[in-house]
Amino acid sequence: MRIHLVNAPEITAYWFDPDRLRHQVRRALEGRHPVTVSVGQDPRDVPDAMRRAHVVVGFELPVHRIAELADLRWIHLVSAGVDHLLPLDWLRPGVALTNSSGVHAELAGQYGVAALLALNLRLPVHATHQRRGCWEQVFNSPIGGKTVVVVGLGAIGGSVAQHARGLGLRVLGVRRSGRRHPQAHAVFRPGALPELLPRADFVVVTAPLTPESRHLLGAKELDLLPRHAGVVNMSRADLVDYGALAAKLEAGELGGAIVDVCNPEPLPSDSPLWHVRNLLITPHISSDPTDYVERMTRIFLDNLGRLLAGRPLRNRVDRAAGY
Amino acid sequence: MRIHLVNAPEITAYWFDPDRLRHQVRRALEGRHPVTVSVGQDPRDVPDAMRRAHVVVGFELPVHRIAELADLRWIHLVSAGVDHLLPLDWLRPGVALTNSSGVHAELAGQYGVAALLALNLRLPVHATHQRRGCWEQVFNSPIGGKTVVVVGLGAIGGSVAQHARGLGLRVLGVRRSGRRHPQAHAVFRPGALPELLPRADFVVVTAPLTPESRHLLGAKELDLLPRHAGVVNMSRADLVDYGALAAKLEAGELGGAIVDVCNPEPLPSDSPLWHVRNLLITPHISSDPTDYVERMTRIFLDNLGRLLAGRPLRNRVDRAAGY
Repeated sequence: MRIHLVNAPEITAYWFDPDRLRHQVRRALEGRHPVTVSVGQDPRDVPDAMRRAHVVVGFELPVHRIAELADLRWIHLVSAGVDHLLPLDWLRPGVALTNSSGVHAELAGQYGVAALLALNLRLPVHATHQRRGCWEQVFNSPIGGKTVVVVGLGAIGGSVAQHARGLGLRVLGVRRSGRRHPQAHAVFRPGALPELLPRADFVVVTAPLTPESRHLLGAKELDLLPRHAGVVNMSRADLVDYGALAAKLEAGELGGAIVDVCNPEPLPSDSPLWHVRNLLITPHISSDPTDYVERMTRIFLDNLGRLLAGRPLRNRVDRAAGY
Repeated sequence: MRIHLVNAPEITAYWFDPDRLRHQVRRALEGRHPVTVSVGQDPRDVPDAMRRAHVVVGFELPVHRIAELADLRWIHLVSAGVDHLLPLDWLRPGVALTNSSGVHAELAGQYGVAALLALNLRLPVHATHQRRGCWEQVFNSPIGGKTVVVVGLGAIGGSVAQHARGLGLRVLGVRRSGRRHPQAHAVFRPGALPELLPRADFVVVTAPLTPESRHLLGAKELDLLPRHAGVVNMSRADLVDYGALAAKLEAGELGGAIVDVCNPEPLPSDSPLWHVRNLLITPHISSDPTDYVERMTRIFLDNLGRLLAGRPLRNRVDRAAGY
């Protein structure tokens, strides 16, 4: 079994110690399967070792040259998001694509509930006042009984929903399938957003970015929210129209917003987004725990065992849906 | 029964609609006791109606003239804190003093847990970076298993402890009595702080302000905290030496701080505290829900019923302890 790792030195959360990975792989296989782990650094490159690989692990990948990998059976992404590789037309039948969904859920759930509580306490408003040296009391009521719309009920959205429910929030979930979810009081398809948004005290965006979900919260949707509503985006920037969001925040037509994702990232220092009223920005830290690689490696090793045993892989990415 | 209300128009959270209070008192007593409710606006004044009162309700009170109230049996404070009336040497035996402890616990517990989660996610650091237009990733680990020291286990501290425990934090409580508490894994007396602080990932200050608790977290105590530790003050500013806190934050010797209380309040717009690195300031909104007066009125009416029935009052303030 030949594994090729495309390491990404510029994304520190995703960087593997190659020797450690080799050791972990060998220990997991207990000598029953010969295995090599080769390493590349440049995600545009297809070195010889990669060309011969059965398994590729990485984030950015040279997908337009993936046909050169004749023995390829499986690609494992160290991210949960697949949007940077869309559309998946380069993925040939017979090659499995899996992601690292689940690694993020615990920390991301805590980010989500922190953001909800912070919005309920008007923290973005207070932070804006603090920048201006302005003491202005705005009182609040406890969060119980308020309504949150969670858009996207994957591992992260489910974790946010669970925390929100624990605090007594009414959780309305949105997902493509409309299927019930144990942590949501009710689940709707995306088409129901125009009816849900006017009832929302908070909206949390945790859906994958696909061509269909781009600007899922656009100007029209944001206009449907009550003036006191708070918005959280912890998925990908392009799910929300940040121009429209900024305009509404500046106009005082929303209670506040907390976003962990921008486009581009890093957000340039001269971006006006930094200074938008009642907006808190965190630098894409909501969901990558310090032990990210350890957690991700556990998913990868579990799937490696499944591949060798001929069992179905976890976290398969749907080629048509794009997530 | 003659009740006198010292209304405080400048503290909106504490302002009563006098007619509504009269109506609520009469309904609660169901006509069994004749009752009058008089109202004053100036906390330095002792109008005739106040001089004849059996019961006084208010926040700021003319305590040095309280001896003029010959029939006084009970004073109810609309706040939980009593520090603004200390020392209680003006309180003569036979006059009960009660506070509104418990009104704040639900919202304050949510502020406390939001602050803990925000500190764990380094939100004060990100807010400081945001002011400078600086994208700098700092990764975090989930909060479970970390240790919080909760200083003060009254209604608010108990509520914070309960939420913290729910998130898997180890909760070390501190209170004068050292008595066990259902939400704390262990409880210590204040003298144990030097041993507890080096083990703290977070400290939350929820103790009452008394001469003994002033600068309970002084320069010496703050120096005992690990460099990554986060500090929350949601009680009274003078429990913490803000000069020492600011110096440590500016030097990068603490993970961050979130404070809801300042001295003086409102914090003047030219205070350097607004701009301290890795410090978030909220304007004393952690614990006063929008329906504060409703919640406080329920405590007051319950105690009024107890007074008339000759039963012990709830929320008695200890004259010697000062809270």
